[in-house]
Amino acid sequence: MAPVELRVIGRVESALTDLASVPRQADEGAPEAVLVFDENLLEGLTDIRPGDAVIIVTWLDRARRDILRVHPRGDPGRPAEGVFSTRSPHRPNPLGLHQVEITAVEGCRLRVRSLEALDGTPILDLKPVLASEVGER
Amino acid sequence: MAPVELRVIGRVESALTDLASVPRQADEGAPEAVLVFDENLLEGLTDIRPGDAVIIVTWLDRARRDILRVHPRGDPGRPAEGVFSTRSPHRPNPLGLHQVEITAVEGCRLRVRSLEALDGTPILDLKPVLASEVGER
Repeated sequence: MAPVELRVIGRVESALTDLASVPRQADEGAPEAVLVFDENLLEGLTDIRPGDAVIIVTWLDRARRDILRVHPRGDPGRPAEGVFSTRSPHRPNPLGLHQVEITAVEGCRLRVRSLEALDGTPILDLKPVLASEVGER
Repeated sequence: MAPVELRVIGRVESALTDLASVPRQADEGAPEAVLVFDENLLEGLTDIRPGDAVIIVTWLDRARRDILRVHPRGDPGRPAEGVFSTRSPHRPNPLGLHQVEITAVEGCRLRVRSLEALDGTPILDLKPVLASEVGER
C-alpha cells in the first residue's frame, strides 16, 4: 500500500527539551506550551477561543517505528504488550494525541495547558473535542 | 518544513460505500465495520480484546486538503468557521479520529461497533482510550 504524505502545519514550543523528562501523560505534571502554526493557515484558526477543549495530533519524530511490542509505560517489570494496546510513542506511525485546553490565542500562536510533547514536535492537526469524547479532566 | 510519510497499516471494511451516506459522527447511526490490518503487524495487535475501547486514526483519502473554512456539519445555513474548530474531514491533513468498541478479534481482523468511515479507508494507528478521555458513550 502506498504511503501517505502529511504536511507539518506547526510546531510545539515547550520547556521540555529532554526526552527522559517528558511526562507520559498530560495529567502527570506536563508544563504549558505554545502551538505555533504556519502563518498561511491563520484562516483555519480564527474560531479557536481561550477555554476551548481541543485534540492536538502530533508527529512524535523521536520515536522508533520498528517496534511492535513494548513494556507498558516503559516499565520492564510489566509484561510486554502489542503496541496497539498501549499509548507508547514507539509504533509504526508515531502519532501523538493530546487533549488540552486553549488558554490564549495570538494569531497563529495558541497557548495550551499541560502538554506532554517535546520542544519542536511537529503538529499535524487540531480538532475540537466532541461532547461524546469529553473526559473527567 | 519537510512533509512526513506515514504507512498505511490497514483498511476499513464497511457497508458504507457512498460518501453522501456516511454519518457525521459514530453516534448518528454508523454501522459496524471490520478493521483489516497488515499481517506483518499481528504481533502489535495480540493484546487487543473484545470490549476494549480504542481510538482509530484514519486517513480520510476522499477529503479536500485545500480548504481552511467550512460550514459546520456541511450546513450552508451555519456561518463558515475555520476548519480547526470543526471536525470537518476537509483540512490540510485529513485525519479521522474514531472512538469505537472492539466487538471481536480474529488475528488481523478486528470487528468494531459504529464506525463512520467509508469502505477502504486507510488506517494509520490504533490506540487504547485513556481513562481521562472516556466519554459517556
